[in-house]
Amino acid sequence: MNYKLIFSTVLKVIKIEAALMIVPLLTALFYKEDCFYAFLITMAVSFTVAHVLQKFIKDEDKHFYSKDGLITVSLTWIVVSLIGAVPFVLSGEVTSFIDAFFETVSGFTTTGASILESVEGMSKGLLMWRSFSHFIGGMGVLVFIMAITSKTTDRPIHILKAEMPGPIVSKLVPRAKDTAKILYLIYIGLTLILTVFLLAGGMDLFESLTHAFGTAGTGGFGIKDDSIVSYSPYIQWVLAIFMLLYGVNFNLYYLILLKKIGVCFKSTELKTYFIIVLSAITLITINIYPIYNSFSSAIRASTFQTSAIITTTGFSSADFNTWPTLSKIVLLTLAFIGGCAGSTAGGLKVSRVILAFKKIKAELTKLLHPNTVTVIKLEGEKVDESVSNGIGTYFTIYFVCLIAITILLSFNGLDFETTVSAVISCFNNIGPAFGSAGPMANYSVFNGFSKIVLSITMLLGRLEIYPLLLLMIPTTWKKR
Amino acid sequence: MNYKLIFSTVLKVIKIEAALMIVPLLTALFYKEDCFYAFLITMAVSFTVAHVLQKFIKDEDKHFYSKDGLITVSLTWIVVSLIGAVPFVLSGEVTSFIDAFFETVSGFTTTGASILESVEGMSKGLLMWRSFSHFIGGMGVLVFIMAITSKTTDRPIHILKAEMPGPIVSKLVPRAKDTAKILYLIYIGLTLILTVFLLAGGMDLFESLTHAFGTAGTGGFGIKDDSIVSYSPYIQWVLAIFMLLYGVNFNLYYLILLKKIGVCFKSTELKTYFIIVLSAITLITINIYPIYNSFSSAIRASTFQTSAIITTTGFSSADFNTWPTLSKIVLLTLAFIGGCAGSTAGGLKVSRVILAFKKIKAELTKLLHPNTVTVIKLEGEKVDESVSNGIGTYFTIYFVCLIAITILLSFNGLDFETTVSAVISCFNNIGPAFGSAGPMANYSVFNGFSKIVLSITMLLGRLEIYPLLLLMIPTTWKKR
Repeated sequence: MNYKLIFSTVLKVIKIEAALMIVPLLTALFYKEDCFYAFLITMAVSFTVAHVLQKFIKDEDKHFYSKDGLITVSLTWIVVSLIGAVPFVLSGEVTSFIDAFFETVSGFTTTGASILESVEGMSKGLLMWRSFSHFIGGMGVLVFIMAITSKTTDRPIHILKAEMPGPIVSKLVPRAKDTAKILYLIYIGLTLILTVFLLAGGMDLFESLTHAFGTAGTGGFGIKDDSIVSYSPYIQWVLAIFMLLYGVNFNLYYLILLKKIGVCFKSTELKTYFIIVLSAITLITINIYPIYNSFSSAIRASTFQTSAIITTTGFSSADFNTWPTLSKIVLLTLAFIGGCAGSTAGGLKVSRVILAFKKIKAELTKLLHPNTVTVIKLEGEKVDESVSNGIGTYFTIYFVCLIAITILLSFNGLDFETTVSAVISCFNNIGPAFGSAGPMANYSVFNGFSKIVLSITMLLGRLEIYPLLLLMIPTTWKKR
Repeated sequence: MNYKLIFSTVLKVIKIEAALMIVPLLTALFYKEDCFYAFLITMAVSFTVAHVLQKFIKDEDKHFYSKDGLITVSLTWIVVSLIGAVPFVLSGEVTSFIDAFFETVSGFTTTGASILESVEGMSKGLLMWRSFSHFIGGMGVLVFIMAITSKTTDRPIHILKAEMPGPIVSKLVPRAKDTAKILYLIYIGLTLILTVFLLAGGMDLFESLTHAFGTAGTGGFGIKDDSIVSYSPYIQWVLAIFMLLYGVNFNLYYLILLKKIGVCFKSTELKTYFIIVLSAITLITINIYPIYNSFSSAIRASTFQTSAIITTTGFSSADFNTWPTLSKIVLLTLAFIGGCAGSTAGGLKVSRVILAFKKIKAELTKLLHPNTVTVIKLEGEKVDESVSNGIGTYFTIYFVCLIAITILLSFNGLDFETTVSAVISCFNNIGPAFGSAGPMANYSVFNGFSKIVLSITMLLGRLEIYPLLLLMIPTTWKKR
């Protein structure tokens, strides 16, 4: 293991995080809030310490193993969350460090689950930091590491493997670093357009930016206790559509920029994504119509909640905790599916679900005709057998983690629905659950141990299990 | 597809079923009940019709493809359940055929979920038929087909593949037919011993037999509305221990008969099974102690429920619906795990869970050391790569079915806990669920559509998904 390189990378990221805190710092300055000092101290101390420590590490061995990349990713997310939690506590607005850590992990993993009983009393600087952490986490803290790593090593690819959601890392341009730049530009561009749309709907700049950040990262932290409920239908529609857009594979936007729209529309994943979304909207609209007694309200609520859950954003425009079981189960299914690979969304990812179905079909064919050789294809290309078998293993580990975490959480003694749905929500990086942790409630009902368990759950979900699991098993640390 | 052979096999099984109805027929005769005629008519008509139809089928082509075996298994289970449901309706004690079908499927699949609001008012003949269907279903309707199929074809092996639970079909003796005989003798022997133990505890012959059948098949139909609650601690302990014994791979009993006890104790699956059982008992005992306030009651209740759920029997000695969430989640986990492969229990099976963990470990090792070749071993033998990859696909299809069925069931509009737990309970062939379908309640809360969905769910679970799924996909029926 190349410890030196791992730690020097983590230190670089700490410095970048300190620099990014300029956004909440300026917000606090603008609104003349006391949390300004909390950010200033955190930035100064973390930057200085990281800078000083860097001097002690002579990063000579440039060789970066696959395992080093995975460990770097996990460590970075944990360290970044620990430091990101500090301003909450320093400002005095959150008293427990566990709570602040939960909130920050929830931010960076773009979950959007909150332990705050009320966000409306929080200072604007901290609210901006919460939402901005979604924006940072959305494209992965580590994707931007690529922008700072040297061109000569093969480091970025190893990191990208662990970081990019979904089973396929497609390379648009030969160099990983350039891919990252293009994806980032699309990400920022889309967020600017959204901000303009929100401003046009009557939101002020602070409201527009926080909601744009929360949407871009498919995070879901809001600045009101009732999330999006009290905003106008226009705002709700804008957010619903943009959430869906952020759930699409970003590579497709690049293809559109290259004027290859035709290729885009041929994408199996994109088509499947929209078929799932439209089916869910139809089912839920019919199911909740009797509650709303108005077609426009019902379809708005169902569209909003469908995009909010499948993209794992987790904004709420209605208290879906009170919806009928059918709608709840449909939403839960969307939570498992998640957005497209290569998007900012969480969940299993549409392409992985497609591959799972193809694998099942292949297995059935093999049973019918034992001597047939089955080839699984996706987007016109043959999927390597190790990849399609890997999907099965991923489903297995996903299922095992889900059950193990649920057991740990049930020690808390909350009811069945709250316990099970909270695990599913955090594991898929959604945010709101059902029951006592429903969309109009929050995670403050859980005890300290549960909050730590759920923080780890959010990280496991965001990093797609393996990197964090490697950090926890002893063999990783053994010398070979 | 060899239609003739498939249908002639199904007809043979119908005749055997008719013959087996002698047990409830004699019970009804002994107690002078009207349902005697219901059985008599069903037996006479089904036997005659099957016999006449057999004359029309000239079963010449002896070639039996793998797919024919799978189709035969699925069809047999469905037909046997349809005919088994007739006496319930003919007797007038169950008015809806869907209800009767649900009850019979629940019997043969050894689920033990009931739509009867009260079993205490039922005639003893029908109660005996319910419990006896567990006994028949326990070792698989199709295993006994082997006893009737010709020795010259390779038919039995194909059928055995679809029928025997768990990933490994171990062959104790060269010929499948002999294996079946030995397993059946062990099964019947164990049931006789259990009956004697129950008689010694003060149960009458009818009570002893019904409970012994329900335990042997790991089914769970009782003859009292409160299941096992009102029986003595002695009876509860006897049942708890025997349920555990029926959850063990029957091959191990054969090894004991051969005086190879040493080999038995080396079994990884057996050791894992008992470690899981002991851990669950410890956790639940501590968790429910405050409710019972007596160590002996708490450990009896937790041992009983642990064996009842992990073996997927589903008897209840207590209303675990009122237990704390931790105990409920532990029980739910046991429900997923199920008993050992080659036992009468349902669920995923312990050996499959072990293999899943080994596969995950192998995947992690591959991430750490990409060039390492990993070999997965179980019980000292190398597991073929196609088997270990198959486990991943099985988990995937299991998870997909679980979600699809939950969506279908949620149309019923019952609460979240009832809906989710009923699917898990039926899919793993347990019986009782939580909420409105809890251990002291029943499945009468569901509507007709849901009962059909749950009947299919029980069959899917019992047949380990694939055979029934093949029956439902069009390509199976296409000519090649």
